[in-house]
Amino acid sequence: MGSSFGQLFRITTFGESHGGGVGVVIDGCPPRIAVSDADIQRELGRRRPGQSSIVTQRDEPDRAEILSGVFDGQTLGTPIAILVRNQDADPEAYKKIVNIFRPSHADYTYEAKYGIRNWQGGGRASARETIGRVAAGAIARLVLRKMFPEFDLVAYVTQIHEVIANINSRHVTAADVERTPVRCPDEAAAKIMMQLIDRIRQQGDSVGGTIECVVRGVDAGLGEPVFDKLEADLAKAMLSLPATKGFEIGSGFGATRMTGSSHNDQFEMRDGRVRTTTNYSGGVQGGITNGEDIVFRVAFKPTSTIAREQQTVTTEHEPASIAARGRHDPCVLPRGVPIVEAMAALVVCDHALRQRAMMLQSK
Amino acid sequence: MGSSFGQLFRITTFGESHGGGVGVVIDGCPPRIAVSDADIQRELGRRRPGQSSIVTQRDEPDRAEILSGVFDGQTLGTPIAILVRNQDADPEAYKKIVNIFRPSHADYTYEAKYGIRNWQGGGRASARETIGRVAAGAIARLVLRKMFPEFDLVAYVTQIHEVIANINSRHVTAADVERTPVRCPDEAAAKIMMQLIDRIRQQGDSVGGTIECVVRGVDAGLGEPVFDKLEADLAKAMLSLPATKGFEIGSGFGATRMTGSSHNDQFEMRDGRVRTTTNYSGGVQGGITNGEDIVFRVAFKPTSTIAREQQTVTTEHEPASIAARGRHDPCVLPRGVPIVEAMAALVVCDHALRQRAMMLQSK
Amino acid sequence: MGSSFGQLFRITTFGESHGGGVGVVIDGCPPRIAVSDADIQRELGRRRPGQSSIVTQRDEPDRAEILSGVFDGQTLGTPIAILVRNQDADPEAYKKIVNIFRPSHADYTYEAKYGIRNWQGGGRASARETIGRVAAGAIARLVLRKMFPEFDLVAYVTQIHEVIANINSRHVTAADVERTPVRCPDEAAAKIMMQLIDRIRQQGDSVGGTIECVVRGVDAGLGEPVFDKLEADLAKAMLSLPATKGFEIGSGFGATRMTGSSHNDQFEMRDGRVRTTTNYSGGVQGGITNGEDIVFRVAFKPTSTIAREQQTVTTEHEPASIAARGRHDPCVLPRGVPIVEAMAALVVCDHALRQRAMMLQSK
Amino acid sequence: MGSSFGQLFRITTFGESHGGGVGVVIDGCPPRIAVSDADIQRELGRRRPGQSSIVTQRDEPDRAEILSGVFDGQTLGTPIAILVRNQDADPEAYKKIVNIFRPSHADYTYEAKYGIRNWQGGGRASARETIGRVAAGAIARLVLRKMFPEFDLVAYVTQIHEVIANINSRHVTAADVERTPVRCPDEAAAKIMMQLIDRIRQQGDSVGGTIECVVRGVDAGLGEPVFDKLEADLAKAMLSLPATKGFEIGSGFGATRMTGSSHNDQFEMRDGRVRTTTNYSGGVQGGITNGEDIVFRVAFKPTSTIAREQQTVTTEHEPASIAARGRHDPCVLPRGVPIVEAMAALVVCDHALRQRAMMLQSK
Repeated sequence: MGSSFGQLFRITTFGESHGGGVGVVIDGCPPRIAVSDADIQRELGRRRPGQSSIVTQRDEPDRAEILSGVFDGQTLGTPIAILVRNQDADPEAYKKIVNIFRPSHADYTYEAKYGIRNWQGGGRASARETIGRVAAGAIARLVLRKMFPEFDLVAYVTQIHEVIANINSRHVTAADVERTPVRCPDEAAAKIMMQLIDRIRQQGDSVGGTIECVVRGVDAGLGEPVFDKLEADLAKAMLSLPATKGFEIGSGFGATRMTGSSHNDQFEMRDGRVRTTTNYSGGVQGGITNGEDIVFRVAFKPTSTIAREQQTVTTEHEPASIAARGRHDPCVLPRGVPIVEAMAALVVCDHALRQRAMMLQSK
Repeated sequence: MGSSFGQLFRITTFGESHGGGVGVVIDGCPPRIAVSDADIQRELGRRRPGQSSIVTQRDEPDRAEILSGVFDGQTLGTPIAILVRNQDADPEAYKKIVNIFRPSHADYTYEAKYGIRNWQGGGRASARETIGRVAAGAIARLVLRKMFPEFDLVAYVTQIHEVIANINSRHVTAADVERTPVRCPDEAAAKIMMQLIDRIRQQGDSVGGTIECVVRGVDAGLGEPVFDKLEADLAKAMLSLPATKGFEIGSGFGATRMTGSSHNDQFEMRDGRVRTTTNYSGGVQGGITNGEDIVFRVAFKPTSTIAREQQTVTTEHEPASIAARGRHDPCVLPRGVPIVEAMAALVVCDHALRQRAMMLQSK
Repeated sequence: MGSSFGQLFRITTFGESHGGGVGVVIDGCPPRIAVSDADIQRELGRRRPGQSSIVTQRDEPDRAEILSGVFDGQTLGTPIAILVRNQDADPEAYKKIVNIFRPSHADYTYEAKYGIRNWQGGGRASARETIGRVAAGAIARLVLRKMFPEFDLVAYVTQIHEVIANINSRHVTAADVERTPVRCPDEAAAKIMMQLIDRIRQQGDSVGGTIECVVRGVDAGLGEPVFDKLEADLAKAMLSLPATKGFEIGSGFGATRMTGSSHNDQFEMRDGRVRTTTNYSGGVQGGITNGEDIVFRVAFKPTSTIAREQQTVTTEHEPASIAARGRHDPCVLPRGVPIVEAMAALVVCDHALRQRAMMLQSK
Repeated sequence: MGSSFGQLFRITTFGESHGGGVGVVIDGCPPRIAVSDADIQRELGRRRPGQSSIVTQRDEPDRAEILSGVFDGQTLGTPIAILVRNQDADPEAYKKIVNIFRPSHADYTYEAKYGIRNWQGGGRASARETIGRVAAGAIARLVLRKMFPEFDLVAYVTQIHEVIANINSRHVTAADVERTPVRCPDEAAAKIMMQLIDRIRQQGDSVGGTIECVVRGVDAGLGEPVFDKLEADLAKAMLSLPATKGFEIGSGFGATRMTGSSHNDQFEMRDGRVRTTTNYSGGVQGGITNGEDIVFRVAFKPTSTIAREQQTVTTEHEPASIAARGRHDPCVLPRGVPIVEAMAALVVCDHALRQRAMMLQSK
């Protein structure tokens, strides 16, 4: 259970890191949206391992096949199934740890939940599961562009360990983000981050950090007032990603140290429409977009797989120690950027369609 | 849309702050759980306005009527509908602001979404909507106690503005929390917090803060590996609460400054079962409980309603200024504590039932 | 579980026949639809007991209170909660049968499912549960009229026991249906039906029959191609009604005796649009409306509650006999007509909103 | 939308008749159920074209690949994705009818709904879509066998056109059904049916009929009392199948001609448990199983694709005529049998898991 996400633009992902492959079924994509393989492949390329020296060297081409739902370059309105085969799988590498619970991995909890697991890799907990999300997110973006001509969505790394970038969310572009392998648009900070990641990898250790995401150009009125607040669905989307530990929107945890008189976003007329003078709300008020930029941040923990030796227990409850030998990311954030973007696109697209259904009359 | 929450233990809330009343329908509560009015009323009493000098003085008895689903003091397995009438409503007080968008309230976004709103109060965005959640949460706790004899769930204020309490999540009890009106179990900090809130109210301003919640005694194995990770559903639950801006579990945003070797929770045998030596994971790994305490924190912004004058615009797009005159909370956190607990209970109860459905065989 | 229906126009009913009351929460009704108490009361009046000599004499005024979601005579877009109090409840009458499983009632199956039941009446299995459906259906009709100016929906009795009416579905009006208490627009047949029902009641027995429903004036394109075919959702809606045993659309079971060459609905241009020359399809092809009248029929069994003595067993598994003494309907069909209409309106309204969400571009 | 079915054992199908393939994702299958390719292939073999002289000769091996969710011959508890490639596709054959709406097909309604369709075949309306259902149904049966040792489920043809078989639902076995290609266990009737189908095919025409299905050995207590009544979900499941026009359970439409005193199923003690002396209810009372055989029937219309010339219009609204030339089934019922079985298994499996979740305490 729990492999589906969204109400109207609804995706279901499948697949383990080892086995036939991973993929997604998108049910509820509107018809007659132009979709090409390249639209999907571009985003998968940003997510895939082996793309730069600071990410895992596992070499997966991650070539997506659209199995259904697209005809003559256009969506049919029917389910779009996308499959990516597993290729560089190396189950033998996992044989040594088949009986060991890796610290802060899902080995133990899967055992507790299912009483069985595919020990030939991370199973569903592997980052490979996010391939389906990224493919679906690429299509959600195309829908959003059709609905909102000014639509734009961009995520980027704002912090790695103690290195904090200086970025103005209002002006960052996708090109700024792609300029460095670490996907931090502050080039000076990016340089330090990359050195840090490199050093950490040599130490057999790992680091975490923060990704910020900004969504621009969507209408006011998206989101639902109670449980399905836009920020609630974004929070769920982000905490459903592997290695995430926190989410905040707008002022976030910083709001806890402000007073109402400084935090409230006062209204004014600007550009011929109702605007706020500040955006501590992060683009949502009462769960519903107000037309300002949607801005949120996601905390990622340091990667669990490290080369240093750690204490643990076996499936037979005997003490054991473990030190990872295989390929892994010393820092997941550079590859996390397109994944955060994909999840954000899925949430916003879903709510944009939901709002369409209810607006019987123009105001 | 979006007024329902949960898959198996599923609640639907209804009601505006003004009108017939607010309430909830719980569909999916197991049969033969002993439920009394007092179980519900106790939690509503903790949430209701007027309970202490540091919260709003709006006087609502918040008397709950169980309309269905309970017979002879036991749940029937059928929908439990609970209604709380609105009593101290004062729509006239709102007449002055019927044409004004209050800063950082949902007035403008509701107008953008619906083209209509019940201006006689906060409508669905009012904190009164949470009455249904609290009533349902009280029942979810009873179910959880039936399923897990050691079940315990307690939330408390850890920070108000710059005042940070010193609390060990492992040992806090419900009694500790109720000892002070601010619901902070660090009594020294609580005293300062209350002074601060009092001063802020006199200044016509408001403050925010942080609530921490800990859930103890639930089995390993609850939660789903992908979108419905336990922490994802908790994040959604918390960000669906009014005035929340952030969520973090375990190490949370602090994880971004740690290394993998210090952050990983190593396994050991303790008390005859698999335990972790630390709990940076916050009780979940890969979205699934590992049997350790579930620990998370929620950021609340300062209340939007303040007595100080603020700039805004009217529904006719004219400049205007506004200063709240009515009763309001200078700090929502003391009343937020039982609400956070209720949402946590709903999430865990839902996942506990989901896990039951799938466990056909003992391990 | 299972007390909710619909995807976008989603209702949740609650309440037992005895207890605080019965009702419904509608989540997903578009905003700014004019709704009056009278709109709802009119339909409840058609459903309620005691309205004519051929239905049960239990006297329930069935006065509906709109608790939320409507303001100044217009829907807010928020959940509409409607409550009808139980008034003429007579739990004492049920005390005699508290330990007896009534044949073809749900007493035994509720015991098997829940291990508890509200023996003071039919509980959730009571026809009173349909009050919430009828109230919600009244609002769904208002939404449909807003969306489709030519929208019309009418159901009627076509058969009682062996008495079969002669009715042309294309021309029946609501006024035709209300002309007789039995709600059969063939007046000659209606007269015989009423005599039959009267005779059967005197015999302490009961009869069943068939209700036909026709929906006119909705666009082509409503419905989904696979599981949520319009006819599939109609079938579910109808089989979810108490006492129903069958559903058929268009040619229905009669289609089994036809050949493809006679059954296929050939296309032609008529009234400036694509039409079919016949309507064996019943207005749907491949699960999607084709713009012709949607026509379906529902089979109702004879009422289970009869005055004749029947054999059964007690909850302690002892043989027993039972003969109903209380008030009951010798034939549920006259009161079934507004209920069938309500469920049909709910299904079509839900699909109409779903289709809106997906139609980003005009064709 | 609408490509998913089930609440806990939830399937999502994908794929058009032409394109990459068709398949299914099953989310919510319990872990540690033994599953082999052969289990799935056996059922696909019963559904596939070309298996006998009375069905279409389109030659598709329909070889299923399990992409995920099964490891070492056991389910993992994670999504099971199954893919069947399209092989014998002949899009050129459809080029002639790209601009023509085939009578009683979904061509026109798809155009009305989506404004686009994959004209290279039936798209989602093709019977190939049911491959995913049959594969998923095969796994649902395995789960049900694990839960209910006496579980048995068998469907069979009871009527083709005017030929009505004489079958006792209590004793039919799977072997009886497979004895004839027409899947009618009354061998004398089967012989006449096959002659009829053969003659009808030579005439370029088609016929419909009725399939009955019986489910044995499941516990009392499955199903929900209101919208998700077991018979409601069965009705939806069956009406979601291509070419179906009607559904009835137990006495079905025949109940309309009975009296309550003859229709009520009286209770008695038999085999040490509560049983009914008759089974007009068809195994469900108030939407919940009573432990008797679940028995229902489904009406199938004659196949729409026929060789005879019919009148229609083009997509440009010009008159046209059409006569099918390709391969098609003159009667879908023999291949419909495993599909009806699959849908029944999915419904019962889903409700069996739902009931597990709610039964916290033994009775």
